[in-house]
Amino acid sequence: MTEAKIVRTEFANDAFYSAFNARDFDQMSSLWATRNACSCMHPGWQPLVDKEAILNSWKQIFINQPEDFFVKHHVIKTHLLGSIFSVLCFEELGEVWMVATNNYLFENDEPKIVHHQASPCRPPEDIILSKPSIQ
Amino acid sequence: MTEAKIVRTEFANDAFYSAFNARDFDQMSSLWATRNACSCMHPGWQPLVDKEAILNSWKQIFINQPEDFFVKHHVIKTHLLGSIFSVLCFEELGEVWMVATNNYLFENDEPKIVHHQASPCRPPEDIILSKPSIQ
Repeated sequence: MTEAKIVRTEFANDAFYSAFNARDFDQMSSLWATRNACSCMHPGWQPLVDKEAILNSWKQIFINQPEDFFVKHHVIKTHLLGSIFSVLCFEELGEVWMVATNNYLFENDEPKIVHHQASPCRPPEDIILSKPSIQ
Repeated sequence: MTEAKIVRTEFANDAFYSAFNARDFDQMSSLWATRNACSCMHPGWQPLVDKEAILNSWKQIFINQPEDFFVKHHVIKTHLLGSIFSVLCFEELGEVWMVATNNYLFENDEPKIVHHQASPCRPPEDIILSKPSIQ
């Protein structure tokens, strides 16, 4: 049951990055939770703790995103933490690497994002990237 | 019950920053979860998903911390997310501001850190800082 939900969470996480790359606002919006409080920390921004502000931030990002923007994500670990499904991943943006925490809660039996935080990190060296991964 | 746990989580969060400022490794160690998987993302580091690596990172940080180091934290919001008590806060380090997510799970009726991620952010402008705060 948990393993199946981990796989479904990783699918949702793939959809998150697919929406990010495709500048698909509708898909991005549909992935966020509606029944739980959400938080979003884009690198260098002020933290966003209001759902409307979070969705607006994605609108702004999609408008300002360069044509050749592409983020490749590498899952480090997906695990169940309390009742949250937490995906820790690297975000590869050309030469720049970020580490992101994407937390999901199930609403109506669907994994929905409740928290996204991305921050600059050193590129992975010896970390074994695996997908899907269970703690 | 939830409100009482939020207050206790914020006390643990105060203890986290107090250990950070005092370079108190024993106190820092005692705050981390022992029954749940932990993750720690220091700004610019590689993500740490191994408890031993996390504790070692604090050892290194305390050794290399300048004498006058002081981080002041400002709680933005503490809320219950699924079964996780999540503290979102600004970290003020002189001119530098970070935003941190500190997630806690209760173990043996004590709030224990399971996740810390700090990332550079714009200084707070119009965000109302309140403490304690409930979503």
